[in-house]
Amino acid sequence: MADAPFTTLDGFRALLGELPGPDAEAAQAARARNGQLTKPPGALGRLEDLAIWYAGWRGTARPRIVAPQVIVFAGNHGVTARGVSAFPAEVTVQMVANFEAGGAAINQLAGEFGAKMDVIALDLDRPTADFTAGPAMSEAEVVAALAAGWAAVDPHADVLVTGEMGIGNTTSAAALAHALFGGAPEDWVGRGTGVDDAGLALKARVVAEGLAANPGAQGDALEALRCLGGRELAAMAGAIARARVARIPVILDGFICTAAAAVLAQTSAGGLDHAVAGHGSAEAGHGRLLEALGKAPLLALDMRLGEGSGAALALGVLKGAVACHSGMATFAEAGVSDG
Amino acid sequence: MADAPFTTLDGFRALLGELPGPDAEAAQAARARNGQLTKPPGALGRLEDLAIWYAGWRGTARPRIVAPQVIVFAGNHGVTARGVSAFPAEVTVQMVANFEAGGAAINQLAGEFGAKMDVIALDLDRPTADFTAGPAMSEAEVVAALAAGWAAVDPHADVLVTGEMGIGNTTSAAALAHALFGGAPEDWVGRGTGVDDAGLALKARVVAEGLAANPGAQGDALEALRCLGGRELAAMAGAIARARVARIPVILDGFICTAAAAVLAQTSAGGLDHAVAGHGSAEAGHGRLLEALGKAPLLALDMRLGEGSGAALALGVLKGAVACHSGMATFAEAGVSDG
Repeated sequence: MADAPFTTLDGFRALLGELPGPDAEAAQAARARNGQLTKPPGALGRLEDLAIWYAGWRGTARPRIVAPQVIVFAGNHGVTARGVSAFPAEVTVQMVANFEAGGAAINQLAGEFGAKMDVIALDLDRPTADFTAGPAMSEAEVVAALAAGWAAVDPHADVLVTGEMGIGNTTSAAALAHALFGGAPEDWVGRGTGVDDAGLALKARVVAEGLAANPGAQGDALEALRCLGGRELAAMAGAIARARVARIPVILDGFICTAAAAVLAQTSAGGLDHAVAGHGSAEAGHGRLLEALGKAPLLALDMRLGEGSGAALALGVLKGAVACHSGMATFAEAGVSDG
Repeated sequence: MADAPFTTLDGFRALLGELPGPDAEAAQAARARNGQLTKPPGALGRLEDLAIWYAGWRGTARPRIVAPQVIVFAGNHGVTARGVSAFPAEVTVQMVANFEAGGAAINQLAGEFGAKMDVIALDLDRPTADFTAGPAMSEAEVVAALAAGWAAVDPHADVLVTGEMGIGNTTSAAALAHALFGGAPEDWVGRGTGVDDAGLALKARVVAEGLAANPGAQGDALEALRCLGGRELAAMAGAIARARVARIPVILDGFICTAAAAVLAQTSAGGLDHAVAGHGSAEAGHGRLLEALGKAPLLALDMRLGEGSGAALALGVLKGAVACHSGMATFAEAGVSDG
């Protein structure tokens, strides 16, 4: 665990200005290897580019995935006072206990795909402020959450999945996405854990009020994160930034994770090049968000649970892609005629 | 390994008339369990129905997947004499050696998802007859291939993936699909391992000639399999039928596997209810075939390799779905408020 190399939002911003890229030589060598494997060219479809992308970030033509990490961040949201969720706020702390006891979906998926899983509860007894009345977090609070995310990443991990739990956080993510990408509040709100039509309309009003109450949130992604985000969103952004610095590829989860990650892309061009979209969530705004980021999801199974569950399932796809790439014989090795 | 309980095509047909269904009580109990798990209703999307479907076929509300089996069948096709493939026919036997040595994509995927893998080479030195001149197989030949598939299934397996290798077999599968579902030859042919536009037009002509040379193939799916299929297609049909009798759920691979499996559905209503579509192949006719069968693929990653590779990757999705279903805590167990 590394202490975060920033103590202010501008310090974090400066760090995003100096992000490392992938290893172009390793990616090129991986592409050459892919062309020699015992299959017709392109027959593994998206698995091929996925493996080459992974090889580039890991700096080796023939990588292995042996140490995936899943981190689930939890936070509470003052905006729940507005009645935006179908579940009461105490479910956040109850679900953290469920994560710790191994009973949630993400525990099963992390186990199935050989990932170690960490759960980081962020000041659950101190919800963020209701963002319809002003900024959700002070600068000290958002920096602490970014730093908690940063510190949670195992530098020896070889893939990172960040997940979240936080009653009310689809509303926070919708407000953040609206501030980052414009459009109308209705473009970004969805049913979350299951609100009805009236709840959906309320969420749109709350998002509009949030933007009106935080004029500084538009035009500056980090300020938008502070004003409209939550601790678990900031922590995911911090973790994904830390992964970039350590060249650990990231699989993005659904709407909330992607909204948090988008802060990096909107602050630094190419800031999410080390991340793939694990799945397309059924939460309404996710498709629009992925389109804005230019990312096509690996899976589309109508999931909308969060916790990192869609990304953890996509970890199976990434592991399969890398296993094929690094384990297959070449035409020459296998004595197979190459057409 | 069981000897097949049929020695004629009509014997196999009779067997398909008496297929067992899923355990409705187990499926109902699984559905009830799903409603109590610590997640908002429906939040795991397609994973939920997938786990319930699996539970019904396995006859238990809380199943585990511990013994997946992948079988790759290989056969050679007389129709390759017409120049329908981008690869020479000797690649079939070369790839069988590659499967046996562990160097193919399917070996890596089977390994990644904990499946045992068997390779069954079917009379590779005796290609089927060129179906543009008459039936590809005699009754004895197709029955032997069906029986080989039947015998290859491990009755203790808890999921089955059937894959194939056979230079020329996308042409055979296209002719079979055309006989089963009508349309035009062009609806069913695709680029296979990589033919150009002229090759594609040739494949359509060859398919048309195949149907003209085998008038008995239309209107009888098993006769279509004999006249237009190949040994590896018949073996897949035999294996998938055996899985049904043993209530082993099946994950279908791409175009060729699905065309072979469709013979069962066209012979016996509901004959493929124990199978899900693992992926949507990039091979042109596969989407049309899945639509005709009413099956939506779990993955869509532009794969078109065969070997069972797309289905083996989807095995990860199924394992994830079942792990969530059977491993998660209920609201009551976890002390989580359920909304």
